[in-house]
Amino acid sequence: MPVRTPDPDPNERDDDDGRESLDFGEGRGSLPGSATNPAWLSDVELAEMRRRLPMIYVEALPVRTDGLGAVTQVGILLRATPLGEITRTIVSGRVRYGETIRDALFRHLENDLGPMAFPLLPLSPTPFTVAEYFPIPGVSAFHDDRQHAVSLAFVVPVTGTCEPRQDALEVTWMDPAEAASDTLSAEMEGGRGTLVRLGLASVGALR
Amino acid sequence: MPVRTPDPDPNERDDDDGRESLDFGEGRGSLPGSATNPAWLSDVELAEMRRRLPMIYVEALPVRTDGLGAVTQVGILLRATPLGEITRTIVSGRVRYGETIRDALFRHLENDLGPMAFPLLPLSPTPFTVAEYFPIPGVSAFHDDRQHAVSLAFVVPVTGTCEPRQDALEVTWMDPAEAASDTLSAEMEGGRGTLVRLGLASVGALR
Amino acid sequence: MPVRTPDPDPNERDDDDGRESLDFGEGRGSLPGSATNPAWLSDVELAEMRRRLPMIYVEALPVRTDGLGAVTQVGILLRATPLGEITRTIVSGRVRYGETIRDALFRHLENDLGPMAFPLLPLSPTPFTVAEYFPIPGVSAFHDDRQHAVSLAFVVPVTGTCEPRQDALEVTWMDPAEAASDTLSAEMEGGRGTLVRLGLASVGALR
Amino acid sequence: MPVRTPDPDPNERDDDDGRESLDFGEGRGSLPGSATNPAWLSDVELAEMRRRLPMIYVEALPVRTDGLGAVTQVGILLRATPLGEITRTIVSGRVRYGETIRDALFRHLENDLGPMAFPLLPLSPTPFTVAEYFPIPGVSAFHDDRQHAVSLAFVVPVTGTCEPRQDALEVTWMDPAEAASDTLSAEMEGGRGTLVRLGLASVGALR
Repeated sequence: MPVRTPDPDPNERDDDDGRESLDFGEGRGSLPGSATNPAWLSDVELAEMRRRLPMIYVEALPVRTDGLGAVTQVGILLRATPLGEITRTIVSGRVRYGETIRDALFRHLENDLGPMAFPLLPLSPTPFTVAEYFPIPGVSAFHDDRQHAVSLAFVVPVTGTCEPRQDALEVTWMDPAEAASDTLSAEMEGGRGTLVRLGLASVGALR
Repeated sequence: MPVRTPDPDPNERDDDDGRESLDFGEGRGSLPGSATNPAWLSDVELAEMRRRLPMIYVEALPVRTDGLGAVTQVGILLRATPLGEITRTIVSGRVRYGETIRDALFRHLENDLGPMAFPLLPLSPTPFTVAEYFPIPGVSAFHDDRQHAVSLAFVVPVTGTCEPRQDALEVTWMDPAEAASDTLSAEMEGGRGTLVRLGLASVGALR
Repeated sequence: MPVRTPDPDPNERDDDDGRESLDFGEGRGSLPGSATNPAWLSDVELAEMRRRLPMIYVEALPVRTDGLGAVTQVGILLRATPLGEITRTIVSGRVRYGETIRDALFRHLENDLGPMAFPLLPLSPTPFTVAEYFPIPGVSAFHDDRQHAVSLAFVVPVTGTCEPRQDALEVTWMDPAEAASDTLSAEMEGGRGTLVRLGLASVGALR
Repeated sequence: MPVRTPDPDPNERDDDDGRESLDFGEGRGSLPGSATNPAWLSDVELAEMRRRLPMIYVEALPVRTDGLGAVTQVGILLRATPLGEITRTIVSGRVRYGETIRDALFRHLENDLGPMAFPLLPLSPTPFTVAEYFPIPGVSAFHDDRQHAVSLAFVVPVTGTCEPRQDALEVTWMDPAEAASDTLSAEMEGGRGTLVRLGLASVGALR
């Protein structure tokens, strides 16, 4: 699984990437770009659609592995909310119109971990779980004030250096037991502590 | 896995069910219902959103099993398109705003197989595959002129009697080998022959 | 998934079933039956092979589900060891020579839950995890003094009445959160608390 | 998923590796080594156990991937049988007493693909399928004259150079469609054509 040479597009941020993460993002831009691309969404339009259609997301739990493929470390993101709160989360973002799951996964990994993370994207397009985020708490284990989102979640080994860009302040690497602990789980937002545990279970790293 | 007592709502067809299947459906209704429920979508609005956001779908391959859980028969739907063509497909439909994957799966199974099918819904929310339908052919194995859809696909045992309603004319039961054949695959639309094979592979019924 | 009509063979206990569970079983019988069936193993022979070859096992976590397939209860077995200790475990037993995984699963479910449990065997032959039990603790999450066993683990809905036979004293039904708790995990032997958590994760019932 | 530095042990062949592949191997060695290691098996002992206990195997379908993780090529082995026939197969071998699934997988990959193949071992210990080989044809899709074997099958990306050792004459790389074709399937022994298709299905490369 050689990694794709990173190729960040300087103009890429015209729609929603990065900011578009499940909890803090909002549609970007305000130009009447929709004239040329009907799939382009203004902030207002995206906000509107979020109240009427389920959004499709991808999420990734970054891990480091030993030579036999066993998970040794898990990467948890620290992020500042627009209100200045610090919260913990994982890589997360919207799938755009016309974009494949794999492309969306690669794009959000690059946005959140930087261009030198060298992620090894999953062979299988099947996620380890499907997380359903609802605006009303309690419907499922996952919650997002802003929207109903259906999120495909993957465990992704990274082999390079992680330098978060955009909203992510830092990647904290911890061992699987710490990542699955009740303490860490309580610090994660939207129920993502559950997602971390399910991801670790899927790779045999939950005890 | 006792089955849920069917409880068809006579007024259920006010949004999109049934007709809303991946290939032929269009948004139902024309009343200004959106006044009361912002998630309600008119035909025009739904058609508009389909050009701008990926839609989330569920699909189900109905099967019959023997006493040990091995798949003995696969149910393939015959359906008439609005143009009067007869095509083959499987159970398929959109996930509504606020609806869980399981509820959507149950709703579309009931729409396509009737209230007496008694489906055994999957324990796991994880699909056997995620099918990505693009409006442009060739991007993936799956194609849908109308939209970009991300579809979560499940194999679902049914234990009762199937009497298709709505657009489905008939359910044809065939053995796994026939369902996976090149002949049948060629008759299925949007690449669903591949989906049938992947589903059979997931339950050990592809040879 | 109609259930197989139970058909307990009164002479079935000539090899190893029931007693053959991962932690307490020993090969049954002492007759020179091997004259007619070379796969028949005496107690001594089986004990010998257990020190020289990895054994293949199946394990099952019995669950009850609601009408949409969500797990509502988990069945944990109480068992008395030969020394009179009471321990907690799940359905578990050896795969015999010439026996399919599905047949072994059915046989051990019947032995441990009784003939009226009406288990719904999994469609897929792929387990939710492969548990590796080693005689030396610490090699993996799982431990068995007696042998090296490779165990294929499944979540199995049961729809009937459970009346344990043989070594199992009782089936205790509890909700998924209790079954996944640290308290219960500590009472289970050989690391099966981890197995319960992984099984619950696989069906979306671990939070 | 950095690869493990290869570390072939020149004395490794004292038990069963390489030759121990599912179809042609026999237990190696004839020294009374069992005096020191009770798990050591002579040819005669292993042949005897093969008639009385199911053996546990691992199998691997080697693949090459593009930068996004999509499978571009599949490696199929050419092998000469003891009778001089040329057959096609995949990486395959027995799990030894005390050996983990991951170690067995690494050992057989190295034996069949050479020390410079640099395989990326799977994160998850769960195989894409469990293949059951029976000595009597027709019980399942898989057949092995010699024994009853339960085989855990994995898809494994390789990033280096493959130089088969031992019995494997050559690795042929082909695209997924060719690997899944009826023609190739017919040339593979023991039903492994089915295993190749199931592996490709598991990574979204079967159409």
